[in-house]
Amino acid sequence: MAKLKFGMVGGGPGSNIGSAHKRAICLDSTADLVAGCFSRNPEKNAEQGKIYGIDQERCYKNYEEMAKAEAQRSDGIDFAVIVTPNNTHYAVAKAFLEAGIHVSCDKPLVTSVKEAEDLQRIAKEKNLLFMVTYTYTGYVAMKYMRSLIRNGEIGEIRTVMAEYPQGWLYKDSGGKQGEWRCDPKQSGRVNCLGDLGTHVENAVATVTGLKVKRVLAKMDVVVPGRLLDDNDQILVEYEGGATGVNWTSQFAIGCNNSLRLRIYGSKGTLLWFQEEPESVTLIREDGNPCIIKKGTASVTGEAAKYGRVPSGHPEGWLESMGNLYDSFGRCILARKDGTLTTDMIDYPTIEEGVAGLRYVEACLESNDKGNVWVTL
Amino acid sequence: MAKLKFGMVGGGPGSNIGSAHKRAICLDSTADLVAGCFSRNPEKNAEQGKIYGIDQERCYKNYEEMAKAEAQRSDGIDFAVIVTPNNTHYAVAKAFLEAGIHVSCDKPLVTSVKEAEDLQRIAKEKNLLFMVTYTYTGYVAMKYMRSLIRNGEIGEIRTVMAEYPQGWLYKDSGGKQGEWRCDPKQSGRVNCLGDLGTHVENAVATVTGLKVKRVLAKMDVVVPGRLLDDNDQILVEYEGGATGVNWTSQFAIGCNNSLRLRIYGSKGTLLWFQEEPESVTLIREDGNPCIIKKGTASVTGEAAKYGRVPSGHPEGWLESMGNLYDSFGRCILARKDGTLTTDMIDYPTIEEGVAGLRYVEACLESNDKGNVWVTL
Amino acid sequence: MAKLKFGMVGGGPGSNIGSAHKRAICLDSTADLVAGCFSRNPEKNAEQGKIYGIDQERCYKNYEEMAKAEAQRSDGIDFAVIVTPNNTHYAVAKAFLEAGIHVSCDKPLVTSVKEAEDLQRIAKEKNLLFMVTYTYTGYVAMKYMRSLIRNGEIGEIRTVMAEYPQGWLYKDSGGKQGEWRCDPKQSGRVNCLGDLGTHVENAVATVTGLKVKRVLAKMDVVVPGRLLDDNDQILVEYEGGATGVNWTSQFAIGCNNSLRLRIYGSKGTLLWFQEEPESVTLIREDGNPCIIKKGTASVTGEAAKYGRVPSGHPEGWLESMGNLYDSFGRCILARKDGTLTTDMIDYPTIEEGVAGLRYVEACLESNDKGNVWVTL
Amino acid sequence: MAKLKFGMVGGGPGSNIGSAHKRAICLDSTADLVAGCFSRNPEKNAEQGKIYGIDQERCYKNYEEMAKAEAQRSDGIDFAVIVTPNNTHYAVAKAFLEAGIHVSCDKPLVTSVKEAEDLQRIAKEKNLLFMVTYTYTGYVAMKYMRSLIRNGEIGEIRTVMAEYPQGWLYKDSGGKQGEWRCDPKQSGRVNCLGDLGTHVENAVATVTGLKVKRVLAKMDVVVPGRLLDDNDQILVEYEGGATGVNWTSQFAIGCNNSLRLRIYGSKGTLLWFQEEPESVTLIREDGNPCIIKKGTASVTGEAAKYGRVPSGHPEGWLESMGNLYDSFGRCILARKDGTLTTDMIDYPTIEEGVAGLRYVEACLESNDKGNVWVTL
Repeated sequence: MAKLKFGMVGGGPGSNIGSAHKRAICLDSTADLVAGCFSRNPEKNAEQGKIYGIDQERCYKNYEEMAKAEAQRSDGIDFAVIVTPNNTHYAVAKAFLEAGIHVSCDKPLVTSVKEAEDLQRIAKEKNLLFMVTYTYTGYVAMKYMRSLIRNGEIGEIRTVMAEYPQGWLYKDSGGKQGEWRCDPKQSGRVNCLGDLGTHVENAVATVTGLKVKRVLAKMDVVVPGRLLDDNDQILVEYEGGATGVNWTSQFAIGCNNSLRLRIYGSKGTLLWFQEEPESVTLIREDGNPCIIKKGTASVTGEAAKYGRVPSGHPEGWLESMGNLYDSFGRCILARKDGTLTTDMIDYPTIEEGVAGLRYVEACLESNDKGNVWVTL
Repeated sequence: MAKLKFGMVGGGPGSNIGSAHKRAICLDSTADLVAGCFSRNPEKNAEQGKIYGIDQERCYKNYEEMAKAEAQRSDGIDFAVIVTPNNTHYAVAKAFLEAGIHVSCDKPLVTSVKEAEDLQRIAKEKNLLFMVTYTYTGYVAMKYMRSLIRNGEIGEIRTVMAEYPQGWLYKDSGGKQGEWRCDPKQSGRVNCLGDLGTHVENAVATVTGLKVKRVLAKMDVVVPGRLLDDNDQILVEYEGGATGVNWTSQFAIGCNNSLRLRIYGSKGTLLWFQEEPESVTLIREDGNPCIIKKGTASVTGEAAKYGRVPSGHPEGWLESMGNLYDSFGRCILARKDGTLTTDMIDYPTIEEGVAGLRYVEACLESNDKGNVWVTL
Repeated sequence: MAKLKFGMVGGGPGSNIGSAHKRAICLDSTADLVAGCFSRNPEKNAEQGKIYGIDQERCYKNYEEMAKAEAQRSDGIDFAVIVTPNNTHYAVAKAFLEAGIHVSCDKPLVTSVKEAEDLQRIAKEKNLLFMVTYTYTGYVAMKYMRSLIRNGEIGEIRTVMAEYPQGWLYKDSGGKQGEWRCDPKQSGRVNCLGDLGTHVENAVATVTGLKVKRVLAKMDVVVPGRLLDDNDQILVEYEGGATGVNWTSQFAIGCNNSLRLRIYGSKGTLLWFQEEPESVTLIREDGNPCIIKKGTASVTGEAAKYGRVPSGHPEGWLESMGNLYDSFGRCILARKDGTLTTDMIDYPTIEEGVAGLRYVEACLESNDKGNVWVTL
Repeated sequence: MAKLKFGMVGGGPGSNIGSAHKRAICLDSTADLVAGCFSRNPEKNAEQGKIYGIDQERCYKNYEEMAKAEAQRSDGIDFAVIVTPNNTHYAVAKAFLEAGIHVSCDKPLVTSVKEAEDLQRIAKEKNLLFMVTYTYTGYVAMKYMRSLIRNGEIGEIRTVMAEYPQGWLYKDSGGKQGEWRCDPKQSGRVNCLGDLGTHVENAVATVTGLKVKRVLAKMDVVVPGRLLDDNDQILVEYEGGATGVNWTSQFAIGCNNSLRLRIYGSKGTLLWFQEEPESVTLIREDGNPCIIKKGTASVTGEAAKYGRVPSGHPEGWLESMGNLYDSFGRCILARKDGTLTTDMIDYPTIEEGVAGLRYVEACLESNDKGNVWVTL
């Protein structure tokens, strides 16, 4: 019933992120999963293929083969979903782009601005769509805040307090995921800032339209025995003069996944908290906080369209990711039809992926130099 | 990739509830939709069939034909999902049961205890599974509270303050749905109590294990021009001596879908609010409210298994409905294998459907007699 | 510097309520404490007199003597504050009224409607002011909600969900106060309803202007070993047709002093919670809850005048009681000047005290007869 | 009945802060107001003296005269309360200290570290007590958090996110107070940081015991037409290695007086918000937030002693200030008796006042130099 077909790279048995993408795509019947290279381990690969009901012949032993084979099939996949470890994103994404296949890649996109710009260039040359799954930008509330700001409801933005603390790495453990995130060999030069900080940068940019001009970053390695940053406190100046503080942490006990935006403008304030994702607090000049929820009459236009069920029927993280794929899928179909226009693109593109890496590299430079301003 | 197949009755173009069931089932690849009778209008029926990618021959013109045809196919549906208006549930469910097909039916089950007991009898005789989709009981938090109570964490339950106010019918309108809900010809003798009150009764019963012994109901028709109850305030006594108040309303401005449970025991208290469905507030004898969320280490056992994504990644109403179907699907598979045991059944069954109607009929009798106690 | 003088009956060493009244009165320099009969025990009486710096001769051995002596002094007290156990209020208040002295009496006023009406009659004959210290009605937020309702901001009131649960008596103890409250010899026929239910009745009446027409009360004795009600669930009908539920409890673990009002009207909703007393949640027809706080520009008129410090500087329970005394003091001064007008009276009078007892007696009758409607 | 006497400098007709100190002191009958120099304007001075019932002869025409005269009286004041504009604090405080009178001075103490150290020296030489009224440290919750941290309940502190945004100066106005605060002639080199930032520094220091080692401050002048800082975002390093961010603002619409502390330790987290001052959120290693309120059994020891009324009976800002004066008064009495010991001092002393000015001066230097680290 879905009009599109997709393949997945990564997401083998036990993978959280693979099944999350799969569920998000199926939620709206955006596309059917028909091919994959789920693991380098042939048995695990086959096992996952069976779980997903993939034809054996489309369960590929590596991504290069998959990209080539699918590109040649008349019923080949429309897009590839990349959910492998971050340090492999570049090679995998490149292979699919070069095979002429659209790509959806988990964030952070790659490990350097250079790689990111390279992918950006190839996608442009090949005229392919590229989504970076900054999941949080898919929430109805995020789109609603964006429209409020665009409409001038809170005036000119003055300062943005943005944060994304977690607590799961408050001790030097955190299971398998904790290990690779904190291992310089697997994660490169950043841990917390790459995983969480890029979400913060992207969320602020998406909602407010502000672009980071320069940063002054303090990146600390706090938990004993750790080698990479687990607490980042960053002063930000945006183009146009707004300021802000971005805070990310992995040892903030009691914080599960606490992305929070507080946006202060000349005429009002907007507050949003990812763990209660459907509520936006809008404060106008009278100073009274008003809570506006998904599905109510106040949420109109494009934001409203992304809701699936009525007000008071909570939608969550998977639905948010589903919203990204919904727009991505519509754009792929429109590209096929030749009807794609820029304003239809309502998902995070490779431009956002590049911006995230520029932010990370500037922060690293600032921190290395002793917490000085670095212009992006 | 799903191992089961299902058909749908109702859920034509524009239907909210049909697409909700569809999404919930697809979220976990529990079953594939392969047949349907989505509308009595042949064009709408065909249109919806196309949207869902159903073979034309399995897009039936009525449910009787569908039940018979699917029963005879070797690849026939494993279960039927009934999302038609309430007053048709009985006939449709009966047709599928008599054809030997498992049934999932929206709530309230039917319009009288008599009908409900009839379906219960047939399902028992035919040895078929029957789910009534009391969606709210699927939340991880509900299952967690149930386990806390079973383990004696809050002692003996003393009183339960349960409520489910909405605000959408505060004026005499509410669109198409508002019209039929408030129309005695389509809804029978109850409006608010049937739609919301049954959820309250079921939520309390599921979480606490308490059974209603008697009720004293005040059912009021408040908004001018309305003919059926839109505000119900009900005193409850449970078997074993606990008491409670159940309140449902449709004119409570500001309440979207505000099912709330407050359960007071001899050793502690549990609080839960459907619009923030992942949080349970547990208060022990020290009186300090502690908030426990889905996905954290405190939520263990069977409750934890229903979570799909980590803590802080919100799951919502569709995921909750998905949980019902997850258990229902497993039970159908187990029934096929001959391995089904009673303790596997973790979805609302026809017994819960019958209990809901007994509650409604007792409340109506209480109200008709001038607000007197009526024993169930 | 205060222009009034008062005396106190009760409030001996260790008394919470005596010192609370004292602090509340001193907060605004409303009156100076110059006389008292703090305890029947002469030593305790003298001890408390010393603490308060009272002249020995005005530390009376009983209230009869105090009333007479103070009435004869040219510098006698302007009003007496009665903070003795409930079952003595009648005699003490009567003595001061008959001596021509204004009275402020703790609630519940007395133990029967008969006694209350008797005091009401005497006060009227003597042209004396009589305050019953329903403390919660003094909050700025309560006065603000009252003005919103009077101005028609939420339209016609439809239903009121009012409650006042506490948790301190969840076990059969509660210290000295718990003992006398639950002892029929000291408290008469009611415990929880007298202590908390009268506050609920009064708070609703004050804020909404609604008068109780009839009640259907379920008063339960739940905690093992207890002899008087500790959980009351009451259906209410108000004059004019609004309905409501009043709930009070003393075993609701986690509830400290949780008076809560939820008022649903035809055009909006008002929510208020005593433990966060400065915030009013106002919901208009758009359904978006807006939080309005003491001291902000939205709170105007008479409500605003009761605030002492700016917005964001919390004021609490003592300040609320201070507000009652502020109005009471102004009225006494105006009575002296001959300038007192009815609209100046902004404190709970003996009429409210009488209404509370009528409510209690009707509930007792309803409960005794098996939970039937009793008209006040 | 109070055992102490005090005089006030400043706090003329219409003054908020003068009457606040007066109320706070009277709340507990800590001291009687018997002398004053409320205004340089003789009429206003006399008017305020009458309001407070001060003898005409003790209504002084200037503070120098007052200090001398009161020092010579056998019934002279025990302490002076200074509530004049900040730039006069130094001279006034010095006069009373030199006259041998204890001093309570509003914050920020003075306008330079030099002045502050001078007062500190004089107070030490004269063996006089000196309180700086950092009001927020008087809350029961603050004292409770301090005891939890001292007891190691949250382990070693890792980072502190502290903030104090207000919204009242979001436009270039703010009445008389707004004008002088933003006027370099009256306020010196700082506005927001002096008014709010010193509270933040003091609150963190009091609760955690952490001392600021160095700061990197970004102080912005944002609202058009303003000349002094109205938004300060400051990176902090504490002695011992903890980090933090301090944020203060005056244009954050919707923030009334939103001092907030979030303290993350190796074993737990503490959260506190001044606008709901009685609640502490304590999160232990299980990650579940537990809310602990003033007056409950969990709050014990010295923290509990500062509560005046039971749990659920809110106490606010005036009560918090009252707590400072309660300790200050006890210490003055003990000094008279010769029984004063250091551990009795539970109010902010001149040391805290000096620390606040060091913080301000370091931030100014950091900002002037282009946001570089400055060690205190």
